[in-house]
Amino acid sequence: MKIARFNGGKIGVVIDDMVHDITVAAGVDAQEWPPVGPVRLIADFAQKRPLIEKAIANAERHKLADVKLETPIPWPNKLIAIPVNYHAHALEMSSPAISRNGGFFVLASSSLSGASEPIVLPYLPGRQIHHEAELAIIIGKRCRNVTAEEALDHVFGYACLLDITVRGKQERAIRKSYDTFTPVGPYIVTSDEVGEPDDLQVRLWVNDRIRQDANTSKMILNVRETVAMCSAVMTLEPGDIIASGTAEGVGPIEAGDTIRIEIDRVASMSIAVHQGEIGGNIAIPTHLPQTTAQGIPT
Amino acid sequence: MKIARFNGGKIGVVIDDMVHDITVAAGVDAQEWPPVGPVRLIADFAQKRPLIEKAIANAERHKLADVKLETPIPWPNKLIAIPVNYHAHALEMSSPAISRNGGFFVLASSSLSGASEPIVLPYLPGRQIHHEAELAIIIGKRCRNVTAEEALDHVFGYACLLDITVRGKQERAIRKSYDTFTPVGPYIVTSDEVGEPDDLQVRLWVNDRIRQDANTSKMILNVRETVAMCSAVMTLEPGDIIASGTAEGVGPIEAGDTIRIEIDRVASMSIAVHQGEIGGNIAIPTHLPQTTAQGIPT
Repeated sequence: MKIARFNGGKIGVVIDDMVHDITVAAGVDAQEWPPVGPVRLIADFAQKRPLIEKAIANAERHKLADVKLETPIPWPNKLIAIPVNYHAHALEMSSPAISRNGGFFVLASSSLSGASEPIVLPYLPGRQIHHEAELAIIIGKRCRNVTAEEALDHVFGYACLLDITVRGKQERAIRKSYDTFTPVGPYIVTSDEVGEPDDLQVRLWVNDRIRQDANTSKMILNVRETVAMCSAVMTLEPGDIIASGTAEGVGPIEAGDTIRIEIDRVASMSIAVHQGEIGGNIAIPTHLPQTTAQGIPT
Repeated sequence: MKIARFNGGKIGVVIDDMVHDITVAAGVDAQEWPPVGPVRLIADFAQKRPLIEKAIANAERHKLADVKLETPIPWPNKLIAIPVNYHAHALEMSSPAISRNGGFFVLASSSLSGASEPIVLPYLPGRQIHHEAELAIIIGKRCRNVTAEEALDHVFGYACLLDITVRGKQERAIRKSYDTFTPVGPYIVTSDEVGEPDDLQVRLWVNDRIRQDANTSKMILNVRETVAMCSAVMTLEPGDIIASGTAEGVGPIEAGDTIRIEIDRVASMSIAVHQGEIGGNIAIPTHLPQTTAQGIPT
């Protein structure tokens, strides 16, 4: 099943090029704040699925091309990301293969955006901002300390994810957590439709020029191991999103670009890049003495 | 006002050594999942406060010592943390003063726990696990791109926070996101009761031996600048928690220890440390060739 969030928090099932509005059958209140209806839907999906399937026949229908696609899970418990999880990307970044050593980081959930929303670049003159194409893993059941063998039992589905990144030496989280820097979508595809997650081609184009083209079989930690590694540290909750890492071919994006990501058996989405006016005022305070790299006042 | 979450998601106002159950007046459903009632309460607090104050007189009362204090905001939009935000801590860690350069990271919200819950150490033989005492800043109003001058208008209150940390070279997020590694509490104290946040003494004892004793006046980015810096990058939501960084004096903790944190005009809480049996199985996959530090297969 392909589950979209659209037009102000409504829930739809996508079949071919149509969205069927099953918000009521899903038990979601589109107006709820904070918007945790999708998290509840995922937690209760086994019970809700028959109701949703029944509701499709008489649902209000919209052309997929006509709706505003929003981020499927706007308020997850957490948005996890795996750094440097493909060898060829490790080489291009001159980075160690961090994921092998038990590495993940966490992104601000406020960076999530949807397939119909632009990426808004912060005003950071002189800084490069890169695209990273990734498979998003959506957790379906609460779990802790699962093995790789049982990990897929706890996966709800998959989606396309862009991990937009300011290059530089700051913490990863700040360089990747600007508003609109984590487009997810266009919708979630449940794991029964995707099947084996370790042979999916992930491609990314900027203005129709291909930049990334790699297979999830090249991941250092595969999907099962990624879920197991995260669950070794912390309880995973329904609706948690794991950005599984990008392959080689990352590169700069600019205002005016259109970025397209496509993942086998998942979906594709095209996102516009706009220039914003804010985000650059991470001021170094002026009331403090200058310091050396070791934090020693000069 | 001192606002506690207790006994399975109930909301209480703490006056002296008593907790007054105002769950209904606060409009919170203790059974709601995911537990976002406290986030909604903070967003609507200006409207709810008169109702809550009125409800106190006839509220069911419990001795503070008799209730189970839970983490005040279990499902925030995000849990932000500021690394190396005191010069003397930068010196003891041989680290640059990261916060000056626009640094923050994000922790998994699943690491949050409450004042009556133990810290459960993962099973990581040979790894040091440290305490870090911090002032938690609780955001009250949605904001983006606020100046330091206007930042406190968007702060709801403060709490004590422990940022428990496995030392080592992995990403900060993974070393600090184990379940129970972010105790917050014992309750939130609204900003009108705390007043100026830049002269609060933050003290931490392990088994009644003082380990940390510093003033928030020594922060590299003060509270106002911290909020401004985070909001330069991303939209802050009501209920967002910012761990403002630890001062010098961090050190190892062990099972059997009791950790006490106390912050002037906020509160104090004592947390037990237990040994857990899991968390160490961040296995390096065996199906892949060994690699060099640069990710090159050997």
